[in-house]
Amino acid sequence: MRGFSPRISALRESPTRKIDELRERLRKENRDVILLSTGQPSVPPPREVRETLAELLKIDSMELYGYTPSQGILEARQAISEDLKRVGGLDVPPEQIVLTAGGQAAMFSTLATLIEPGDEVVIMDPTYFGYRPLLEYFGAVIKRVVTRLEDGFQPDPETLKSVVSRKTKAVILVSPDNPTGRTLSTEAAKAVVDLAKEYDFWIITDEAYKTLIYEGEHVYFYKLAPERTISINTFSKDPAIPGWRLGYVYGPPEVIPKIKLMNEEMVYCPPSFAQRLAAIYLRSEARMRYIKEVVEVYRQKRDVAISALRRYIPEARFVTPSGSMFIFVDLARYVQDGESFARELLERYNVAVVPGSYFSDVYKAAVRISFVTETPQRIEEGIRRIGEAVGAR
Amino acid sequence: MRGFSPRISALRESPTRKIDELRERLRKENRDVILLSTGQPSVPPPREVRETLAELLKIDSMELYGYTPSQGILEARQAISEDLKRVGGLDVPPEQIVLTAGGQAAMFSTLATLIEPGDEVVIMDPTYFGYRPLLEYFGAVIKRVVTRLEDGFQPDPETLKSVVSRKTKAVILVSPDNPTGRTLSTEAAKAVVDLAKEYDFWIITDEAYKTLIYEGEHVYFYKLAPERTISINTFSKDPAIPGWRLGYVYGPPEVIPKIKLMNEEMVYCPPSFAQRLAAIYLRSEARMRYIKEVVEVYRQKRDVAISALRRYIPEARFVTPSGSMFIFVDLARYVQDGESFARELLERYNVAVVPGSYFSDVYKAAVRISFVTETPQRIEEGIRRIGEAVGAR
Repeated sequence: MRGFSPRISALRESPTRKIDELRERLRKENRDVILLSTGQPSVPPPREVRETLAELLKIDSMELYGYTPSQGILEARQAISEDLKRVGGLDVPPEQIVLTAGGQAAMFSTLATLIEPGDEVVIMDPTYFGYRPLLEYFGAVIKRVVTRLEDGFQPDPETLKSVVSRKTKAVILVSPDNPTGRTLSTEAAKAVVDLAKEYDFWIITDEAYKTLIYEGEHVYFYKLAPERTISINTFSKDPAIPGWRLGYVYGPPEVIPKIKLMNEEMVYCPPSFAQRLAAIYLRSEARMRYIKEVVEVYRQKRDVAISALRRYIPEARFVTPSGSMFIFVDLARYVQDGESFARELLERYNVAVVPGSYFSDVYKAAVRISFVTETPQRIEEGIRRIGEAVGAR
Repeated sequence: MRGFSPRISALRESPTRKIDELRERLRKENRDVILLSTGQPSVPPPREVRETLAELLKIDSMELYGYTPSQGILEARQAISEDLKRVGGLDVPPEQIVLTAGGQAAMFSTLATLIEPGDEVVIMDPTYFGYRPLLEYFGAVIKRVVTRLEDGFQPDPETLKSVVSRKTKAVILVSPDNPTGRTLSTEAAKAVVDLAKEYDFWIITDEAYKTLIYEGEHVYFYKLAPERTISINTFSKDPAIPGWRLGYVYGPPEVIPKIKLMNEEMVYCPPSFAQRLAAIYLRSEARMRYIKEVVEVYRQKRDVAISALRRYIPEARFVTPSGSMFIFVDLARYVQDGESFARELLERYNVAVVPGSYFSDVYKAAVRISFVTETPQRIEEGIRRIGEAVGAR
């Protein structure tokens, strides 16, 4: 009786993975592709942190290689606790933090812990494409709240209210947002919290980009409703170690031990070398300087991208991102289907973007543009080619 | 409607984690505990490999930090393919290998891919304690085959036959075994393969310790039944990077892409720095020399442990392990309940072992002794104390 679990049929190749594969094929054809598709940072972690790690590798001991507690080493959790205080003014003790094998494992383990088949979960539309397949895998009933470009992609409190009920298990909010770059307003956050209290559901706040803010401030749900806020975090963006796989979840004391257990079953313990890096980085003098520099680098690239969009694709509609790594560009004035357009753009113009349909059921003529991975020159050139491809001028 | 998924109630704290916590408490009390409980290696990876990695850390580029393909970097999969040929004579192309975030993620993703609720899965008794909670989490019906100490813990073909049926989805076999140190005989392996073909089930072969062999040879199921063999592997033991979390699965071409997808959902990609280490290590000149040296170090420790057992606990029953890191010692002549004995041993004699009940429903008076983590002197002293604790002399 060989065969497979029917549950895995919910799993699909990640959209960016599909693009990566296409890109890989083009690379083999020696074609130089401009990568506006990936959220891969362009500034490696601070040199002094890397040099400290290099020294540790030379020591003849198992210290650096052994298993760690499944919740993560205390030193790293303390460093995170201090950092949440420093950057956000939050009081989160190390016991309420569990390290995970990246943000993806944080998402997987959190949803595995909370969701039983039939639970209703509210997500925004557009939202990060990572949530839908996981929610389907765990059997959740997905409820969508479409956010409007005209509202700066802020969720409308009335729409939210019409979607939640006693059957709502959780609302998932990404801020700063992937793909829109929107940072949630305090007003919208408070509306979510009021509903969460009224209907007693979890707030899952994805804070992957919380330190990549260009204007305004990041809203921490934990300050508004600590008893029901579960926060998803990653070291993939700050300090730029996506491949090393380290993230964390913080939340109420009764939730964290369960998420820890789930991670123990999934990966036994979070990767230890990345934990060392995180502990060293967050406690280093470089920490605040590094992220400030990175934000300046990305802000300049963002501004280049915005100017290029206005110049080369004048009727493109978008909201200038106040955070994250992305601009969500609605090309409805030019194209009908973002997916076939993105494919053509890659094949014929050597520019990779992610189609809006990967994030949304409604923004089908949009594409997500990343402004962090490439150089300013190549970002401008990439957007010029998009303009050419849509026949904007 | 806050609350949790009922599925996670199948999850329990890993037994070794419970022991780790107790140990941590004793450490805080400044008590020096002899660790015969953990499979943590004592020889770090080859120095030259670590030095190469240290140099890579000094390069100012995102090369070392970026996401990798979710199946793992080609270089690492090629190195594994070559290594399987070298150490086992196997022909496994890189496409049939998927890297995972450690052996645990290899187990989790494999079972997630295969098992649907109600599937029957056959495991040995005793067997590695990691499998039971996962099988329960995925809703499998567990069928046990008790292996007898008198048979050197080889599964009896007749018993196997009485347990399998058309409802059998998979048989899981760990060899070299954790906890018994038994390496599966060719005869027993062939009996499993015959049944697997007759009833068409998967063979899950856990080869975590395949290069830690003291006598005889490791049997590769892949040579006997490549079409139905799914192999679980880890770099935690060879080359001793348990905390870094890297493992792999190899198997039939139709299975690997599904396991890859599951890993993508769990962790997005395997830890990249560990992948580099694996690629460098397996292709280094140090590779064969290192594992030979490690096997010699562990063999000597094993022999110290065996002598000490005979000397201090003459009526202890065990099979001299021909592989792995463990001796499974039946103390039935001395104690009734291995679990309360192990607790007392730790509290009163400062020696940590893992009780047999964590591996077995029948060997309740046994304990698992690891002979790799401590020095020979401390291994002898630990076993002397066990003898004292059971009142052997």
